[in-house]
This record gives sequence, C-alpha cells and structure tokens, in this order.
Amino acid sequence: MAECRPWVRHHSDVVFDTSRLQVQRDQVTRPDGTAGVYEWVAAADLVRVAAIVDSHVLLVDQYHYLLSGWMLQLPGGSIDPGEDGLAAARRELAEETGYQGGGWTSYGQTYPLPGLTPTTVHLWMAENLDPGQATPEGSEADLHVRHLQLGKAVEAVADGRIGCAVSAALILAVAAHS
Amino acid sequence: MAECRPWVRHHSDVVFDTSRLQVQRDQVTRPDGTAGVYEWVAAADLVRVAAIVDSHVLLVDQYHYLLSGWMLQLPGGSIDPGEDGLAAARRELAEETGYQGGGWTSYGQTYPLPGLTPTTVHLWMAENLDPGQATPEGSEADLHVRHLQLGKAVEAVADGRIGCAVSAALILAVAAHS
Repeated sequence: MAECRPWVRHHSDVVFDTSRLQVQRDQVTRPDGTAGVYEWVAAADLVRVAAIVDSHVLLVDQYHYLLSGWMLQLPGGSIDPGEDGLAAARRELAEETGYQGGGWTSYGQTYPLPGLTPTTVHLWMAENLDPGQATPEGSEADLHVRHLQLGKAVEAVADGRIGCAVSAALILAVAAHS
Repeated sequence: MAECRPWVRHHSDVVFDTSRLQVQRDQVTRPDGTAGVYEWVAAADLVRVAAIVDSHVLLVDQYHYLLSGWMLQLPGGSIDPGEDGLAAARRELAEETGYQGGGWTSYGQTYPLPGLTPTTVHLWMAENLDPGQATPEGSEADLHVRHLQLGKAVEAVADGRIGCAVSAALILAVAAHS
C-alpha cells in the first residue's frame, strides 16, 4: 500500500449548473500523491420517513420515470432551500400521505452515492400521527399510499419490491429496533 | 388526486458529458398531464459485497473526498464498461481486500438515488473466500480493511458509522437472513 496521504483539493469549478443540479470539476491530489480530476454532482439533500400507523408502515407506490417502472418507497423528497430536515420530513409526509403531527425520532443521516455526490438523506421515524388530506404535486399524481405490516415491509425489502436503497435501510433499521 | 397517467418522454438531450457522468435533459409530460423538464444524471452502475470471513463481515475504512471524512463501507465500486455485475463484484473485492474465490449469492439490485439517476447497485454476499494480496488503486491508497462481527456491523449501522446507505441496507439484509 502506498504512503497514506489525504486527498487535497486545489481548485473547484462549476462546469454545469441548473436549478436542479450542478456538476463540479475539482483538481485534486489523490491519496497516493498523484494529480487527478474529481467530477461530482451537487444536488439537494433529501428526507425519508418511516411513518408507523397501527403497526403498519406507510409506503408510496409510484411510477419512477427514470426506472420506467413502479416502485415502493418510503415517503420523502428534497429539502427546500433554507428548510430544516425535520420540517421537510413533516411536509413531504403530509403532502404524500396526509398524515401529520405525531412524535418524530431521528434515525440519523445516510449517503446514497458517496462517490458521486455528497447529497445526504435525513432519516426519520414518525408515530402517533393524525390522518389528513394528501396534497401530491403534479409529478406525484400517480402516487398511491400502501399500509404494510412492518414484517411484511421487511419481506418486501428481501424480495426486491422496495428497490430504494435508503427506504430499505430505514425499514430494516426500524424493524431491528422494534 | 388528478387523473393517473404515466410519464411520457418526448425528447432527451445530453446537456453535459464527460467520461464519468452525463447529464440528460428530457422534455416530458408529467403524470397529471402537464408539460415539464426532467434533468437527470447517467453514471456507471455499481456493486457492493458483504464478504463473510470467520463470521465477520469485511468493511473498508476510507477517507471519502466528497464527505471530507472517513467512513466505513462494504467493498465495491463501479462496473467497468461491458463487465458483468458478478465479475465486477469479484474484482472489487479482490482489489480492495485481497479475498477471492468462494461462493457468491445475489441479494438483488437497489437504486441509491432513483429520482436523480437510474444508476443501480448490484448486491452480493460472498462466503468461503480465499485470502490474497490487495491491489488498491491510487485513489484507494488510504483504504484499510476491517473485520467486524456481523452483530457489531449491525450496531455500526445503527450508530451511524456505516454512512453508506447501500452498505447499511445490505448488512441489515444479510444479518436478517443469518
């Protein structure tokens, strides 16, 4: 193994920029001392929520444009600029499922693609929620809310129906705690 | 809820392109029938491996440039062009830890950031491996291999030391099976 040195960032340029994402190109020195280029994507941080209602976990069943198919996922989405992670989690849960109020427990943060983007997902578990009216966005008009027993949700992770990595990790973590 | 219609893709342009990633801009019709733009990132698919050695799982402890910190993660990395997922998993495990051979079980595929990229991670569990010499790349010269008991790895997920969402999901899935 070569001498261990940390990465050094010499210069960083925004080489592509839109409202949704930016691509950065950094001039770096790698851990082995060689020079290189590191290209990465900046995008909004996200939230996912394991909402427990009558011993069931709420899942959203939605057509995913990029996957050309339906997939089960925990409720969640992007944190708005200036918005707090918990506020975003409460907003996304209410928009997608109608559920609000309740008691919220942090399950920390996780990195979905740490080699490509520093984007973070804030993880929450919510209980004792009050039902309400969902208000999905235009891109969510195909969204359906499913109530799965926690054990059935764990089975759905195992058989691949919950293809969202962050949702899978949070469901298994909540199940391990319960 | 509005009338349910699938997303329609009318046109797709590559608006940024390098060897590591591409940004696509699609003209779409959203599920509620409104017109829109969907920008997304194309990047290589990945593999992650839960390698079990003497009832311990192998983890790589590495400084993550984008996170400006060290993080535990399962061995893995990008699938090379034209490479098979299992071949990539075997190659990455051998490069990072030296372990090779053994018996391999698929744990399916998962999507780390399905709203931003269709990039897929192929999940594998490997057992009965033969030790060998690691051959890390220049960007991996700071990589250290840790052997954690599976139960300790589950604890490391719970306390946030395994901040990689896909690694966390695979460790919890393997632990639930064992």
